[in-house]
Amino acid sequence: MPTNTSESCKQVGGICGHAGLKPATDWRDRFSTEAASRGDAVMQRMHAILAQPGNEGVCSLGPGAPSADFFPFFAAEYTVPSAGFPDDAPARCTTQLHIGMKDVSEGVSNYDLSSALQYGVGTGSKQLLGFVKEHVKIFHNPPYLDWDCILTTGNTSAMDTVMRIFGQKGVTMVIENHTYPTCFETGLPLGYSFFPAKMDNEGLLPDELDRDLSSWDEEARGMKRPTMLYTIPTGQNPSGATPSADRRRQVYAVAQKHDLYILEDDPYYVFQFEQEAGPPGAAPPTTQQYARSLIPSYLSMDTDGRVFRMDSFAKTISPGARVGWVTAARQVVERVMRVHEVSTQHPSGISQIALYRLLHDEWGHDGWTRWMLHICEGYKKRRDVMVGACEASLPRDVVSWNAPAAGFFMWLTIDWHKHPQAGTMSTHEIEQVIYDAAIRHQVLVVPGSWFLVDQGKSGMDTVFFRMTFAAPATNAIPNAVKALGDAIREVFKMG
Amino acid sequence: MPTNTSESCKQVGGICGHAGLKPATDWRDRFSTEAASRGDAVMQRMHAILAQPGNEGVCSLGPGAPSADFFPFFAAEYTVPSAGFPDDAPARCTTQLHIGMKDVSEGVSNYDLSSALQYGVGTGSKQLLGFVKEHVKIFHNPPYLDWDCILTTGNTSAMDTVMRIFGQKGVTMVIENHTYPTCFETGLPLGYSFFPAKMDNEGLLPDELDRDLSSWDEEARGMKRPTMLYTIPTGQNPSGATPSADRRRQVYAVAQKHDLYILEDDPYYVFQFEQEAGPPGAAPPTTQQYARSLIPSYLSMDTDGRVFRMDSFAKTISPGARVGWVTAARQVVERVMRVHEVSTQHPSGISQIALYRLLHDEWGHDGWTRWMLHICEGYKKRRDVMVGACEASLPRDVVSWNAPAAGFFMWLTIDWHKHPQAGTMSTHEIEQVIYDAAIRHQVLVVPGSWFLVDQGKSGMDTVFFRMTFAAPATNAIPNAVKALGDAIREVFKMG
Repeated sequence: MPTNTSESCKQVGGICGHAGLKPATDWRDRFSTEAASRGDAVMQRMHAILAQPGNEGVCSLGPGAPSADFFPFFAAEYTVPSAGFPDDAPARCTTQLHIGMKDVSEGVSNYDLSSALQYGVGTGSKQLLGFVKEHVKIFHNPPYLDWDCILTTGNTSAMDTVMRIFGQKGVTMVIENHTYPTCFETGLPLGYSFFPAKMDNEGLLPDELDRDLSSWDEEARGMKRPTMLYTIPTGQNPSGATPSADRRRQVYAVAQKHDLYILEDDPYYVFQFEQEAGPPGAAPPTTQQYARSLIPSYLSMDTDGRVFRMDSFAKTISPGARVGWVTAARQVVERVMRVHEVSTQHPSGISQIALYRLLHDEWGHDGWTRWMLHICEGYKKRRDVMVGACEASLPRDVVSWNAPAAGFFMWLTIDWHKHPQAGTMSTHEIEQVIYDAAIRHQVLVVPGSWFLVDQGKSGMDTVFFRMTFAAPATNAIPNAVKALGDAIREVFKMG
Repeated sequence: MPTNTSESCKQVGGICGHAGLKPATDWRDRFSTEAASRGDAVMQRMHAILAQPGNEGVCSLGPGAPSADFFPFFAAEYTVPSAGFPDDAPARCTTQLHIGMKDVSEGVSNYDLSSALQYGVGTGSKQLLGFVKEHVKIFHNPPYLDWDCILTTGNTSAMDTVMRIFGQKGVTMVIENHTYPTCFETGLPLGYSFFPAKMDNEGLLPDELDRDLSSWDEEARGMKRPTMLYTIPTGQNPSGATPSADRRRQVYAVAQKHDLYILEDDPYYVFQFEQEAGPPGAAPPTTQQYARSLIPSYLSMDTDGRVFRMDSFAKTISPGARVGWVTAARQVVERVMRVHEVSTQHPSGISQIALYRLLHDEWGHDGWTRWMLHICEGYKKRRDVMVGACEASLPRDVVSWNAPAAGFFMWLTIDWHKHPQAGTMSTHEIEQVIYDAAIRHQVLVVPGSWFLVDQGKSGMDTVFFRMTFAAPATNAIPNAVKALGDAIREVFKMG
C-alpha cells in the first residue's frame, strides 16, 4: 500500500494520502451532556505519564495491574488457513499460529500473549488498530484530514456508544423504513425519536427525503427536525437493498443540505455478489483491485467528516470474537474512547491477538482479501440456492422477490390483497397467520413488522418477510423455502 | 458441592440450598426510565421461539448469523497448568487444552469452538455461567431466594451498566472517602452525586454513616438522600482496608435501615493474606474449606437481595480476557441482560471458551482454588517485600503505613505538618511536590487526591499516596520504594 512519511502527514489517521483536504466539521455542540462531560480517566492519565519522553526509566508503582507471572495461559495456538490457502478450499492448507508470552522480546511478532492477557487501552491494541487503519485507508480513503479509527466490541456496542454520545433528549434520527431493530431498541430508551424514510429496491429515496426534511413541521410530525441518519448501505437489513454509488452520492448530498450526521452500519460491505469475476483460473485481484470493485461507502465520499462508520469482524471472521471498529472524525473517536475507558475498556485481548496474528502476521491485506472473496463466493452460492428454491417453491401469484445483490437476506413481498379475507383482516393479522403457518410447516421466517419502529401498530400497507441464506445449511434451504411456500398456499387457500 | 434437585429448587439461582428464604426486595421503582423501558430484543425473541418445545424441527431462516463454515479458526490450543500442577510451581506441570470445532457432537466437552465463535446470548454462555453460579453458591451462598448471575465484559462494564439501570437524575451514592476513580468518572456524567463517607483502617464507619444518613438535610448537603452505596470490601482501592465480618454486618445493617442498594465491587476477594495456612506440607484446603476461611462478602449476608456484587477474572486469570460476572436479584440481572442485548451482547466467546475449558474441564473448583491460593501466596510475598522496603527506606518521621491484609495496594500517610512550608503551602501543593520529586527520582506513585470525587479541590486535611505491589517485578520493588524515600527526604529537607 502507498505510504507517505512526510512530517505533515503524521496526524492524518496515522496514514497519509490526500492533498487539499479540510478537517471535519465540528460536531461537539451536538454531544450529550453525558458525553461532553467525560474527562480523562485517572488510570489512563498514569499510562500517559509513563509514556512521556524522559520517563522511560520510571518504575511504576501506579496502575494496579496484575502481574503477568500469574496468567495461567502460557501459550496459545490456532489452526487457520495458511497465507497460501487455495481460494476454493482454504481448509485444505492450514498452519498453526503459535503465540507465546514473550514473542515481542523474542522478535517473533510485535504483539504477544503477555500483552494480550493484560489490561489494554481504550482504543484497542495499537497493533490491531494499526492494521485496521491500513484497511480503512485502502478500502475507503476518507476524503478529509482528521479521521481516526478505534476498536469496539462490535457494531452493537458501537451503536450504543454513538447514541449515548449524540443522545440529547429529543434527537430525531432518520432510519430506513424497515431497519435493524437494535437501532431503535437502543435509541428509544435513550430518548431518541425515529423517522422512517421511504425506500425502493435500492434503499433510501433521496428526493423524498429532501422533500420531507425541507418541509419538516415539528408539531405536525410530533418530533424535532432530524439531525441524524442511520443507514445500512450494503445488503440492507432486512430488505437486502444495496444503493448504487450514484444513489449514495445523492443521499450524502441530502445529508449535507440538511446537516445530518450519518451512522453507516456496514457489516455486509464485502459481501457484494455482483463484482465482475475474472476469467476462470485468473489470478485473484489484489487488495487495491478488490477495494475498487466494491460500491463506494459513504465514508469514502465523506468530505465533511459527517460519517460514523461501523465495521465488524463478525461476518468475515467470527461474531463471537466481539471485535469491530469505527471510523469517524477524531473529535468523535476521542469521545468513544472516553466511553470505553469507563465501560468495555477494550475488546478482549484474546480475541484481538488471534485476529492480529491471523490478519497481519499470517495473511496480510492480500490474504485477507482472498479470504473475503472466498466467503463472499460461499454466500453467493447460498443466495443462488435460495433464489432457485423461491423460483421452484413459492407461489408467484402472491409472493415476489428480488435476488439481493449483497448481504445475508432475501426480502419477500406478499400480495396480501389476494388473501381470501383481505377485506376484513388487517395486514398485521395476515402477516401473523402466515408466520404461524410457516412455524407449523417447520420454518421460521421473520415478519416485516418486526423491523418497524412501531412494530406496525399504526397500520401497514405492505406485508413482508425476511429470510436469511447465511445461517442455514445450504442443503436445508430448498426444503425450508418449500415449507414456506406450502404455508402461504394454505393461508391463501391456493390449490 | 451439595446439590438438591427437588422441583421447588429449580428457580433458585439455578442451584438450591437454603430453606425458609424470602425473595429479594422489589427494586423496580428505582430503575431509570432508560432501563425500565427496554423490551425484549427481536433477535432474542427468535432464539426463544426456536427453543420452544415442539419447535425442535423448525428450520431457521431467522437470525442472520454467519455460517460456521466460514470461521477461519479451525482449532485452538492453550498451554496451561494441568489439573495436577504443583502448588508452588504450576508452570512446571502443564497440559495442552485442545479445542475443536465439533467437540460437543464428538463428546469431548459441552462447549466447542463452533459455538464460541458464533453469536451468543446476553447472559454469556450457559456453560461458563453455570460454572460461575456454582462458584457463587460455594463462596457466597446468597441467603435469599431469587438470586441470579450474568457474565459481563468485566467490572468496569458492569459498573457502567448498573449505573445506567439505577441512574435517575439526582441519585446520590455513598462512596468510601477515597475510592476507585472509575466509580465517579462513570457516575458524574450520568448525573449521580457522590457522598464520600469517612473511613478508618478497616474501611467504612457504620456509626458515622448512620449518623450522617439519619440527619440528612438535602438542602444543606446539596444532594438528595443517598439511595446507593458503592464499596470495595477487600483490599479497598486505594486504601487497602479490609473490613472484618463484624464491621460488614454493621454496614449492611445501616444499608438496611436507610434502604441503600449496595454495589459490592470485589476484584481482590481471593487475595486475603491472613487466612491461616496449614502446617508445611499439609494438604491444600478443599474449595469449601477455602471459601469458609475468607471474610464473608456482603452478598453472603444479603437477606434482602440489595447487593449487586461484581466479580472478575481480571485479577485471578487475565484482565485482557474482559470477562467478569455479576450476582444480584433476578429482576436486576434481567435488566442487565437487556442492556447487554443492545450493547456488548456478551463477553468474547474466545475468552469464554478458554476460561471454561481451563476452569471447568481441566481444573474444576478444587483446581481453581489451588490456583487462587497459589497467586494469593505470590502477591503476599510481594506485599511482604514492599512492607520490608518501606521499613528499610521510608522516613518514619514523615510516612506511616499498615501492611494491607488483602489486595494489591499499600497506602502511605504523609505527615504533611512536618513539611518546612506547611504553614504556607496547601496539602494539595505538598502532595504535588512529593509526586513530582518521586517522578524525578524515577518512581510513579499515585496521589491520594486522584481518588477523591472532587480531586481534593475543596481542600484536604490529609496527604496520601497509593503504591501497588502487584504490577512491578518483585526485585524492582526495593529500589522503587527507596527512590520514593529519597524523594520524600528531599522534599522535607531531611538530612
